Amino acid sequence: MRVLGVDPGLTRCGVGVVEGVAGRPLTMLGVGVVRTPADADLSHRLLAVEQGIEQWLDEHRPEFVAVERVFSQHNVRTVMGTAQASAVAMLCAARRGIPVALHTPSEVKAAVTGTGRADKAQVGAMVTRLLRLAAPPKPADAADALALAICHIWRAPAQNRLQQAVARQAVHATKGRTA
Amino acid sequence: MRVLGVDPGLTRCGVGVVEGVAGRPLTMLGVGVVRTPADADLSHRLLAVEQGIEQWLDEHRPEFVAVERVFSQHNVRTVMGTAQASAVAMLCAARRGIPVALHTPSEVKAAVTGTGRADKAQVGAMVTRLLRLAAPPKPADAADALALAICHIWRAPAQNRLQQAVARQAVHATKGRTA
Repeated sequence: MRVLGVDPGLTRCGVGVVEGVAGRPLTMLGVGVVRTPADADLSHRLLAVEQGIEQWLDEHRPEFVAVERVFSQHNVRTVMGTAQASAVAMLCAARRGIPVALHTPSEVKAAVTGTGRADKAQVGAMVTRLLRLAAPPKPADAADALALAICHIWRAPAQNRLQQAVARQAVHATKGRTA
Repeated sequence: MRVLGVDPGLTRCGVGVVEGVAGRPLTMLGVGVVRTPADADLSHRLLAVEQGIEQWLDEHRPEFVAVERVFSQHNVRTVMGTAQASAVAMLCAARRGIPVALHTPSEVKAAVTGTGRADKAQVGAMVTRLLRLAAPPKPADAADALALAICHIWRAPAQNRLQQAVARQAVHATKGRTA
């Protein structure tokens, strides 16, 4: 399973590609940051994010894209840009027919560190260990993107089993009605 | 000047095309709503918004796109979808090199009714009058999109004069420095 993780943002959009399956060592295929100039027109910044994401999709051909779910509790100004950058990432994936999964920051932290309240350093340290890297990826947005991809690989089997169970349930319900 | 106004939204994205110049009667070239199913995957809804906006750009070839500026004071759940739909509209315009202008809801209301606190009915009534329509466009999102386009046509000359003044200022400053 090859997953592109995206930590959305206009100034820095973290991107990281991880390959592997749950329960086996994972491999990092690439990590980086798509940057856009803060003084540029918003529409041009969104265009630059799109071009950056497209390059990553072209190069790595992921089977899934995992994007951080954006909440608007926090900084009001920042969150709008984050929501808009995440929309661009989701759109790029949807255009190619790649399934998009959203994971919350605490789901990601819990997946890689065991606690949803882990700090940036802890996430960076675990990403470094799990992907057997020489040093934590910098900046934090890049490490977060890898953590998202890892989270997706590890959560996916459970989600798939749940979806299968729901599908079976639906089939039984239909049979019950037609009997 | 031909302007596509976009009142962004995931469930209903209002779109309207108006042609004209400030101080002259305006003409409506088209109005409608791009809808996406509430139960669809978010990434597929964004894709449907993109396809809808692209159709409007193909058909009407506007010189400007005016999008409502989204604030996050209001309903937290709705505003994220609105921000994401607006990102898609801005992206579609930027890809074609069409300038994007953002106007706040109160700027739009003030432009068409004279007060930034006008209600939906008042905006609808003025849009109907200014575009010489037989009845107010329905739903309100469609009328709001036309109001955005009208607002842009009327505000643009002032913005252009300001930009020209800034440009002249910059030329004088350069001359002063080189003299």
